[in-house]
Amino acid sequence: MPALITYRTPVQEDWVDYNGHLRDAYYLLIFSYATDALMERIGLDADNRGQSGNSLFTLEAHINYLHEVKLGTEVWVQTQIVGFDQKRLHVYHSLHRKGCEEALAASEQMLLHVDLKGPKSAPFSTRTLQALEQITEQQRDLPAPLYINRTLRLPMDK
Amino acid sequence: MPALITYRTPVQEDWVDYNGHLRDAYYLLIFSYATDALMERIGLDADNRGQSGNSLFTLEAHINYLHEVKLGTEVWVQTQIVGFDQKRLHVYHSLHRKGCEEALAASEQMLLHVDLKGPKSAPFSTRTLQALEQITEQQRDLPAPLYINRTLRLPMDK
Repeated sequence: MPALITYRTPVQEDWVDYNGHLRDAYYLLIFSYATDALMERIGLDADNRGQSGNSLFTLEAHINYLHEVKLGTEVWVQTQIVGFDQKRLHVYHSLHRKGCEEALAASEQMLLHVDLKGPKSAPFSTRTLQALEQITEQQRDLPAPLYINRTLRLPMDK
Repeated sequence: MPALITYRTPVQEDWVDYNGHLRDAYYLLIFSYATDALMERIGLDADNRGQSGNSLFTLEAHINYLHEVKLGTEVWVQTQIVGFDQKRLHVYHSLHRKGCEEALAASEQMLLHVDLKGPKSAPFSTRTLQALEQITEQQRDLPAPLYINRTLRLPMDK
């Protein structure tokens, strides 16, 4: 299977700085919308219109900025499942545009499945686990994510 | 010196989800504004109104989400310099509110000093290096950042 495309959007006016370039936080907003789309695909609801009563909370994210992106550029997000357990999901999003072979940005994220009634962490339903297993199986032959398990450090850090 | 407070804001309506909680990407937007404020403090300009012709680009960021934050809550960012070299700056932002001793979120970021005429990476000016040294010296006795040099991993990751 080709990479799973979870979200497409043009870069919007509210998202750019005075230079017309996508501001750092808005790369993460695009990835956040991609997570919403992934949730729907695995039987969770990205908002309260649905009935599952469950959601994914972001515990932690790491993002690498690789290229600038200009106002109006059509971009899309590819999403890879890195791993999951009964309550947690480790995903890898990358941002792309036509004409640029390399990703524009990449972000790995750790997400926690939450019962909104608590809110408290809760195991995934069988349906969601099956959906995650199916995607993982379909992505078996994808190359490993490039920007993953990284730490930030300078030689002179305290 | 107490921690350096770089930015204060109430949580705005555009930034919250249907539950009235700050969406993950907007924590990073608040930290992005804090970086803008830090830039002004060290002699760089956060936008093109200034004359320096230089800016900071975010190369990489890691963010930990620790507590939910509700619409309207007054929050502030504390910023610590982790390290820097001739062109790069490693900062640690944490988000806080009154009545919550623990940080609401924390983010370490690697920033690159850029000459906007290129754009290309460029050494910091002597004035900026002196400002960074001064802040580092003032922060010598601050406790070490809690959420730093971390990797994301699940036992069952591929």
